[in-house]
Amino acid sequence: MKFATLPNGTPDGRLHLVSRDLTRSAPAQTAKTMQAALENWSVIEPRLKVEYEALNTGGGDPFDAAKALAPLPRAWQWLDGSAFDSHGDLMDKVFGMEKKERNPKPLMYQGVSDTFYSARSDIPFVSTDDGIDFEGEFGVITDAVPINASKATAAEHIRLIVQINDWSLRKIAPVEMKTGFGWVQAKPPCGMAPVAVTPDELGVYWRDCRVDLPLNVKWNGKQFGTANGYAMSFGFDDLVVHAAYSRNLVAGTVLGSGTVSNPTYREVGSSCIAERRGIEIVDHGKPRTDYMAFGDTVSMDVRLPDGSPVFGELLETVVRT
Amino acid sequence: MKFATLPNGTPDGRLHLVSRDLTRSAPAQTAKTMQAALENWSVIEPRLKVEYEALNTGGGDPFDAAKALAPLPRAWQWLDGSAFDSHGDLMDKVFGMEKKERNPKPLMYQGVSDTFYSARSDIPFVSTDDGIDFEGEFGVITDAVPINASKATAAEHIRLIVQINDWSLRKIAPVEMKTGFGWVQAKPPCGMAPVAVTPDELGVYWRDCRVDLPLNVKWNGKQFGTANGYAMSFGFDDLVVHAAYSRNLVAGTVLGSGTVSNPTYREVGSSCIAERRGIEIVDHGKPRTDYMAFGDTVSMDVRLPDGSPVFGELLETVVRT
Repeated sequence: MKFATLPNGTPDGRLHLVSRDLTRSAPAQTAKTMQAALENWSVIEPRLKVEYEALNTGGGDPFDAAKALAPLPRAWQWLDGSAFDSHGDLMDKVFGMEKKERNPKPLMYQGVSDTFYSARSDIPFVSTDDGIDFEGEFGVITDAVPINASKATAAEHIRLIVQINDWSLRKIAPVEMKTGFGWVQAKPPCGMAPVAVTPDELGVYWRDCRVDLPLNVKWNGKQFGTANGYAMSFGFDDLVVHAAYSRNLVAGTVLGSGTVSNPTYREVGSSCIAERRGIEIVDHGKPRTDYMAFGDTVSMDVRLPDGSPVFGELLETVVRT
Repeated sequence: MKFATLPNGTPDGRLHLVSRDLTRSAPAQTAKTMQAALENWSVIEPRLKVEYEALNTGGGDPFDAAKALAPLPRAWQWLDGSAFDSHGDLMDKVFGMEKKERNPKPLMYQGVSDTFYSARSDIPFVSTDDGIDFEGEFGVITDAVPINASKATAAEHIRLIVQINDWSLRKIAPVEMKTGFGWVQAKPPCGMAPVAVTPDELGVYWRDCRVDLPLNVKWNGKQFGTANGYAMSFGFDDLVVHAAYSRNLVAGTVLGSGTVSNPTYREVGSSCIAERRGIEIVDHGKPRTDYMAFGDTVSMDVRLPDGSPVFGELLETVVRT
């Protein structure tokens, strides 16, 4: 199934089913909001499927992704991982750190979840001095996961896959990281591509609880990266297990992969500017690429090999507060 | 004004006004839930005050703090500081770190906010091997704070003061801290004392956006600490400014002081076991106090100098999941 949330004047918007080809949508009859659907997922899933199949055979209204809110416009919890080793290894190299023994546990921090920006938002920033950067990620949304869940249980509770833009302030990030407390100022709210999909929509490209598809990133309309989402050192099931060790996860918990990165980043490019700058530092001793300026745009898009759209395009613009 | 939330079968419960002496309560007529009140605070505050004054002159029902939920049973955001230098300095000493230059910014991480345990909860933990510890804190709840707010604006938006028990797993905390990503597993949901109060209820004991009152902590009924909340190196207004630098704070954002600690900890005691163990390590080369066992209780209580109660007593019990 594919879902979007359209604005209706409330913070949570109105849940819609979206046709597989993203051309049409219809209000979900079984649940008013995405949060409500997630709170009752296992019960209502069969009825949602009936609605979805009906929509795919015709009916509904034209779907305008540009009008959609984030599929889940606010969530009780957002936990972001950093599961792509090629990114972490490069960053360690850049900062002159010795090659660390790989952490046996996933890296994860908790970020702001009361707002997920829509895919066509103007994103407000105080100053370009803070090093404004995008981070293209994949994410999952769970329904309720019990504390200390097993890996199999965790996988069952992954109900939706989303595509996320984790906005980051790179000049603040290392300062906050040094405290050991993680990031607050360095991590404003994220954006989310307009459509959330159930794992079965990816077919064989949802593999080992990872998205085996390239994330196409453009900066100001120019190709920036096409890294594939499969290279995670931990799958999303592992991330859920890690998160749920000492807490129940409420329905609507969002977990992120961290910036999508491949060891072949010189060929496939990157999903954030920080990584490109890291490569430049390694190659030339210093970065050649600046961070984003006011007015800059970033777009992210994911397609199946046959060209059909998955999450719809995210296209966000950096603006001054 | 003083507020509590009583159970009514919904996750957010039913907002009640509580008499100044915590003996009686009445359902708030102006707002059904604490979250709803905070979303419309500046408009409804005068009407809530009328309700509160009426309750203080009589009427209402007997207030049973033991039945109350957390005053805000779930929040969109929980940002916890670490604003007591005597605690940080001691921890640095214990870990053999050289005396760091004080961070010019507050220390702060984002924690789980979808659940605040009631003041009389059984708190589930997987294993005592994780080093189960309490942390007595003060906290504030804001209404909506605009991004990049000034200190004066921040102070205006502090609507409520609460008392928090920040449950912590001490064996996991340093491992997560070393990653720089902050804590996920080491920080299960917090408890909250049953009553939230407006700053004016503290009179002169709300000073420089700090709570100038001792936090009385008992472990298994035995006196453990009476550290005063005034010794914060940053006031709650500073914490709000820090948090809002790159994000709007939604109504119902909760910010914590970090474990209450005084330079005189040898006399006044501590608000968490980790600090007592730190003192023991400094004095005797190793800790003599274990962390909590299943069945252990911790209580926290705050009184005005005349003995009158402020937040009501928190009394939580450690249980096995």
